[in-house]
Formats: sequence, structure tokens, C-alpha cells
Amino acid sequence: MISSDDLLPVGLEDALPQRARAITEAMRAVLDAMDAHGYDRVRPPLVEFEKSLAGRMEGVATRRMVRFTDPDSLRTLALRSDMTVQIGRIAATVMAAAPRPLRLCYAGDVALLKADQLDPARQRLQLGAELIGSDGVAAASEIVSVAIDALKGAGIGNISVDFTLPDLVDTLADKALPLDPAAREAVRRELDTKDAGGLTAAGGEAYLPLLYATGPFAEAVEKLAALDVGGVLASRIAGLRAIAETIGARARITLDPTERHGFEYQSWFGFTLYGEGARGALGRGGTYTIKGSEEAATGFSLYMDPLLEALGSRPAEARKVLFLPLGHDRDVAARLRAIGWRTVAAITGEEDPAVLGCTHRLDGDEADEIS
Amino acid sequence: MISSDDLLPVGLEDALPQRARAITEAMRAVLDAMDAHGYDRVRPPLVEFEKSLAGRMEGVATRRMVRFTDPDSLRTLALRSDMTVQIGRIAATVMAAAPRPLRLCYAGDVALLKADQLDPARQRLQLGAELIGSDGVAAASEIVSVAIDALKGAGIGNISVDFTLPDLVDTLADKALPLDPAAREAVRRELDTKDAGGLTAAGGEAYLPLLYATGPFAEAVEKLAALDVGGVLASRIAGLRAIAETIGARARITLDPTERHGFEYQSWFGFTLYGEGARGALGRGGTYTIKGSEEAATGFSLYMDPLLEALGSRPAEARKVLFLPLGHDRDVAARLRAIGWRTVAAITGEEDPAVLGCTHRLDGDEADEIS
Repeated sequence: MISSDDLLPVGLEDALPQRARAITEAMRAVLDAMDAHGYDRVRPPLVEFEKSLAGRMEGVATRRMVRFTDPDSLRTLALRSDMTVQIGRIAATVMAAAPRPLRLCYAGDVALLKADQLDPARQRLQLGAELIGSDGVAAASEIVSVAIDALKGAGIGNISVDFTLPDLVDTLADKALPLDPAAREAVRRELDTKDAGGLTAAGGEAYLPLLYATGPFAEAVEKLAALDVGGVLASRIAGLRAIAETIGARARITLDPTERHGFEYQSWFGFTLYGEGARGALGRGGTYTIKGSEEAATGFSLYMDPLLEALGSRPAEARKVLFLPLGHDRDVAARLRAIGWRTVAAITGEEDPAVLGCTHRLDGDEADEIS
Repeated sequence: MISSDDLLPVGLEDALPQRARAITEAMRAVLDAMDAHGYDRVRPPLVEFEKSLAGRMEGVATRRMVRFTDPDSLRTLALRSDMTVQIGRIAATVMAAAPRPLRLCYAGDVALLKADQLDPARQRLQLGAELIGSDGVAAASEIVSVAIDALKGAGIGNISVDFTLPDLVDTLADKALPLDPAAREAVRRELDTKDAGGLTAAGGEAYLPLLYATGPFAEAVEKLAALDVGGVLASRIAGLRAIAETIGARARITLDPTERHGFEYQSWFGFTLYGEGARGALGRGGTYTIKGSEEAATGFSLYMDPLLEALGSRPAEARKVLFLPLGHDRDVAARLRAIGWRTVAAITGEEDPAVLGCTHRLDGDEADEIS
């Protein structure tokens, strides 16, 4: 009988064999793609001093962290809710003397005590890569390329990348389209929700054309350039074009220059990754400054759940599994495993090989198909 | 400047590139070996209800778990300190209807709030396999074989397996060498410390010969059989011989029938894994009954730290890394990555390829060795 103690807390789940297998395969593919581009994996711990984690992130996320008191130091510890800040800490401390650019990648579980209303999951598998020491066009081009290769490696089809300019409003308000500092946040919000009426009401009438500089990259970037009369966006626009050119035909590129959801800490460039089969974003990235060390960096993060959603509709590869009856030749079985067979050995002698998922049965040194 | 907030709590560490790479490689090798024997990986969550975890384990370990209150359910949650109990829960609940024997494996981080005096690590990477539905000789033989294959796959040399009989004292005391129930614990303890004087003082004089039935398996099991005058150990001894025979020459086998450290919940059979280069055990396993569901099972666990210690003395494989200068042909670089090259692209144009660890430099479509 299953008691309530056997249930899992809301937002926490077991990944059973089929899902766990898909996770392992996707994770290996993503890590292999990052490794091929020269990114070294690091493994920070699950738990750190709360101050160390919180001090390197923006305000909102810290309130959702799991906290507890360390019986050793009596200080507050927290379960990590984001690995990017841990990579920043490593780059700023133990790897401060490593040559730049420093390429690091990671894959690991992060936990949030309080679930998001839109996403009840309280544990996520986060994967990503960070190029530390540069936030220029070359770094951004490389990071977008690595992200695309990682998704392709995992089997994601029809990849599209949506570019944004996270500091667009500040840049324009400082130089070309003056805005009362008090109005900036309202203008950002109305641009984000793409509400023309609200934007005008918030005093952002001059920003209205930005709402239409969206869509497929080639046309949208032309519209953005056309409204940049003062040329304050010129270097950003040239950067976007250069990144898009290095991507070429490997992914569909779109532009949504005012999108800021998920780009709270990015600087001039941000991007969102999409793929066939997933309703939402597969991941995000961009340029930023590491909080604390103030070093320039560019990176991206993927999350396993939307990746699996995107991959979910594909049929799993049929696997050949060999049943080994009682008294089978162990050396033959070992040789067959060495060439890639998966084996399932009899324990009681009363097993039904088909029920155990076997497709073949060892007879002497022959693998006979089970009909 | 590094502030104290940037330090990690005692017992928690970053695995930097070299170590993280060794972990990833060893983990893949161990998982692949378990997979080849038909073990399906599952991924239970990092956090569960404390009652669910504690209810399935022995007393001591539960006091070392990290606990906190769930803001959602207001119940106490805990960070897992052992994955075996999670596999037991999965087998007893969501996979209760799956055909037996059920073969599951796992690899993941576990955390202990309070460090052990002998081992300050508060986070460990645990890996293992469980065969659920049997605790007989065939199950034990398979589990020992899988453990050996996992260690060999990870590159461990000179593997030895030390067999033990965890319920030996109870079996003898019930049937052949009567012992006051009050004396059993003392006798077990003196056998464990191999103290002949203490054993006699504890009233366990009749158990003295057990202290000498240890060492290389063939001789030690003969000594054990010779002192089993009543034949109460006959089935256990036959079991040990059968397991040893299936292992053959793949590992050195020893017997220490009274060893019980680390075998608090095993039944008739337990084993400890050793390998060249590690001072302590690489892992342990044996037969047991899943607490709660009372189903028979056999399994083993490995820990990454001693595995890495054993592998540490080996030189890392030299890797060819290709520097891609500014303006390189991206298609050529992609083709080279596809055939296994690792690339490191120029970002500023001022990098020294050798400092970044590169062994080759792309010139047109040629990889020139850097001298």
C-alpha cells in the first residue's frame, strides 16, 4: 500500500527509465557539443553560503532559494537555484588567473523552494556555457553557434534564435529619445507587452516604431536601422548583423529588440532559443558583466524540461536486447556486450524474455530473434 | 579581492576542469557498464519528504540529513543522503507493477549536513545498480559481475572483492553456537575489530576460529567450512563458492566473513570493492530486503571520490586541440569538430594558442601542429 509518505512533494518528480534515458542522451549530446568548442566542464557544489549565491544574482530569484543553517559554520547555506552565478564565482576566484577568454560549461540540478505559478517544477536540470573575458561580437557569435550546435546535437529540429537588445531603452533614452528616468520602467514594460496605447500613455510615443521592428531578422533589422536616426544604435545593429551572418542558414533568426523577459542582467545582446515541438523557449543567453568581479562575459543556459518536450514526439530508437538463459556462456555474453549488445540475464529461469523487453535470446553463441 | 563569501563551506568543493572531466568520464563508463547488463537508469529528485527518506533507512544516517520546511505543504523536506532508498521507493511505488527482476541504476549527488570525522566531504557522487525481486546466488553473482565491469570500464586496475556474511553471528547464534541475545552485539563488535581477547571476554570463545577464516577466498572458505560442524552455514558457503566461480579470474576474491562495517542492512551476502591506487573501499554491495515493501533485492554503490583517487595516478590522455584564427572557414571548423577535433576560436585575435592549450592551428583547411 502506498502511504502519503511515499508521494513526492509538489514540483518534484522521479524520471523513470524512458525519461531518464532521454535526459542522459540529451545531456551527453549538449555537453559533447560544448566540449567540441573548447568549453571545459566544471562542477560546483549543490550547496553554498547563501550570501555567495545571492550576492551574485538579481533580487527576485534569491527569495526562492532553499535555505538552512550550517551546523558547522552556523552561517546560512542555500541550495543553488542557478548555476551561472557559480560559474561567475569560479571565474572570479579559483580560476581568476586562468588565461582569458575562459570557456566553461556546466550541467546540473538547480532547486527553487517556491514554485513559479507558470511552472510548478521545483527542480530543474540546467545546462550551459560561459565565455568569460569578452562580451563583444565575436564572443556573442560563438556563443550563439555553440547553443545551436548543442541543440542540434541533442536532436532538436527547426531551431530558431530570437535576438534582442536588452539595454535598448536605456541607450535610446540616454542619447536619442530622452525619457524622464521615472518613465523608463513604464516604457520598458509597455514595450515588453507590446501595448501601443499603454506605451503612448506612459510617455513613450517616440518609441512606438520599435514595436514594428520585429520578425524575420533581415527585414526587422532594416526597420530598426531606419528608425535609428541619431545612429546611437549603429554599433549594436552592426553587431546583430555580424552575429546573424556567422549563423548563416544553420538556424532561423528573428529580431524582437524590445523583448526583455528573461534578460534582467544582460547588456547589449540577448537571444532566446526555440525549436520544433516545444511551446516555450528552450533556453536564453547573451552578454553580461559578472556581478562582483565586473568581468565581461557571454553565455547561454538551456533547461532539460523544454528540451525533452521538443524531443518527446520522436520515436525512441528501438534497442536490441539479448536474453541470457540460465547456464549461458559468460564469455560469449561479455563479448557481445563489448560490441554493443545490451544483455538481460535469467535469475530464476522462469522469466519471460519478451516481458523483460528482450528482442533476442542467446542460444550457444548465436543471438536468435524472439518472434 | 576574494571575500569570505566567495569561499565554500567546509566539505563542499568545486570540481575544476581536470577533475570534472575525470568525473564525467568515469561516470559515463560506470553507467554504460550497468546499462549493458540491462540496468535502466532512473533519476529521483534531490529533495523528498523527510519521512519518506528516513522511513526507508537505518537510524544513524537520517540524523545527518539536511532538513527544511516546505513552504507549499509545510511538511519537512530533506536533501537525499543516499540514493538506494529512493530506488527502493520507486520499486515499491511507481514501478511496483513492473516485471521482476527489475534492474535499476542511478548516479547522482547526495548530501550530508554533518560531515563524518573520517571523511569531511558533505556532498558525494553516488553511483549504483539494484536488482529488485531476488536476493539469491544468481542475483548476487550478477551484481558482483556488474560492479567489476563498472570498475573496469572506468579504468580501475587490480580489482579485488572482499566477501562477507553480514548475518553470520545471528545465524550461528540461533542454531550452532548459542549466544545470550545480550552478548550478540558485543561478540559482533569484537569480531569486527578482530580482537581475540575481547571476543573471549565477551563470551564468544566458540567464535574464535572465525577470526582465522579470512584471506584469499579458496583457503579462507575451506577454513570456514571446516568450522561449520553443524552445517548451518552450508547454504551460505555454497552460495559464496558459486559467486566466486562466476567471477573466475576477473578479480581477486578474498573472504572476511565477520566484516560488518558498512553492511548494516545487508542479509546473507555482502561485498566490498577495492582497486589499485585507492586507500579505502571503492564501494560496497550485497543482498537485502527493501524496508517498507519487504521485497528481496541485491545491489551495490560506488562513490566517485575513491574512484578518482584510484584513477588519479594515471596520466590524462593528451588531447589534440585546434586553434581557429580570426576569419577561419567556419565550415571547415565544423567538419573537423564532427570528426572529433576540439576547437578553440580566436575572439580578440591576440590570444596565444599555446597558452589556451591548443596543439594545432588551422591554416586554410589544414591543421598545423604548433611546435
